[in-house]
Amino acid sequence: MTILAETPTAAPSATEGAVLYAEVQQFYARQMQLLDLNRPQEWAATFTEDASFDVPTLPEPVRGRAGLVAATTRSHAQLEESGQRHRHFMGMLDVRPREDGTVHVRSYAIVYASTIGQDSRVHRVCVCEDVLVRGAGGLLVATRRVTRDDLA
Amino acid sequence: MTILAETPTAAPSATEGAVLYAEVQQFYARQMQLLDLNRPQEWAATFTEDASFDVPTLPEPVRGRAGLVAATTRSHAQLEESGQRHRHFMGMLDVRPREDGTVHVRSYAIVYASTIGQDSRVHRVCVCEDVLVRGAGGLLVATRRVTRDDLA
Amino acid sequence: MTILAETPTAAPSATEGAVLYAEVQQFYARQMQLLDLNRPQEWAATFTEDASFDVPTLPEPVRGRAGLVAATTRSHAQLEESGQRHRHFMGMLDVRPREDGTVHVRSYAIVYASTIGQDSRVHRVCVCEDVLVRGAGGLLVATRRVTRDDLA
Repeated sequence: MTILAETPTAAPSATEGAVLYAEVQQFYARQMQLLDLNRPQEWAATFTEDASFDVPTLPEPVRGRAGLVAATTRSHAQLEESGQRHRHFMGMLDVRPREDGTVHVRSYAIVYASTIGQDSRVHRVCVCEDVLVRGAGGLLVATRRVTRDDLA
Repeated sequence: MTILAETPTAAPSATEGAVLYAEVQQFYARQMQLLDLNRPQEWAATFTEDASFDVPTLPEPVRGRAGLVAATTRSHAQLEESGQRHRHFMGMLDVRPREDGTVHVRSYAIVYASTIGQDSRVHRVCVCEDVLVRGAGGLLVATRRVTRDDLA
Repeated sequence: MTILAETPTAAPSATEGAVLYAEVQQFYARQMQLLDLNRPQEWAATFTEDASFDVPTLPEPVRGRAGLVAATTRSHAQLEESGQRHRHFMGMLDVRPREDGTVHVRSYAIVYASTIGQDSRVHRVCVCEDVLVRGAGGLLVATRRVTRDDLA
């Protein structure tokens, strides 16, 4: 059911835990906004160089930033062509710092779709399991695995 | 309108307030994920032994963990039978620490439903009023009162 | 695309950043709940005296608290008349403290609508760009600009 239970859990202080929780929220807010703003290079830079990205909309997992840029550029072009906008809204972040310095996060991600000139609706309801690592500029996604509630 | 206005409000420092806010967010993320993962025992353990749980889907308020386990096990079986998945997404947490050590939280909870093989949609829009207390392992729900926006 | 890139970014410590992030979340939770609870005076008091409020549902930007009270009182009366309830659910807060002491926040705001006796659904998907300033009692919105995903 989950990839997030393997390494021992770290035990940060209450303040360290709160600082990490806010940092993870800010990281995801920025990452998802970059995706929805169609800035694929900056979005891909929030993943590690060799990140693994496994989502149901792709036929197989993508590895590395070039693949991430290609996949999201393609998706965005299709959206534009069909007069749609997507917003990725994450929440319910279960944030688990590990002794090895990684941060495991299991969250919910709702994708909203709007048709310009028409209406807005729920597009997808997803569960997102990430392993985050710390890079020079802050957190980075090392692995992401997304499942969709409407698929078996 | 609200059960959350009776005891005097505590005045924590800015850092204490931020630590509590993050703790409450992490608590709810874990609690709702346990519910949606169908782990009724672990979910019920996030309530006090004699917790009161008043939600519109139940004919009358439930009291205590055994009742919580029974109610949620029944709900989950019905979901599975109908090929549905639910996700409970809370947010807009208005967190009010009280002088008596309790924490009053008024929040919004959206329930998303997905039919496997079909689509996803908003199922319920709710307001959740909790009184949280501090147990040995962290926060616990002592009382929960949920109202649904589609009911009078 | 964005009004939020003009003044230099401040560099708070990790703890200061976390405290601000929690404070902004709590501020929005309270602000949106006041709106949805139809307490227009208290809601308007979360804006500066001369706040600018630019949303697609109004024919032109509103300036100042009296205008805010009038606009939201009107909206709420229309909702009541049609047997509807709205909930404003914000998230994905990209929080940027500036050197001039303001806090720029770009977020997503989902408006859910429920028809009493019937169902609940997504009403609007919006992007909200705020400039927050610090008043005597805490944060205040100085300028708000909201765009709707379903409009060109």
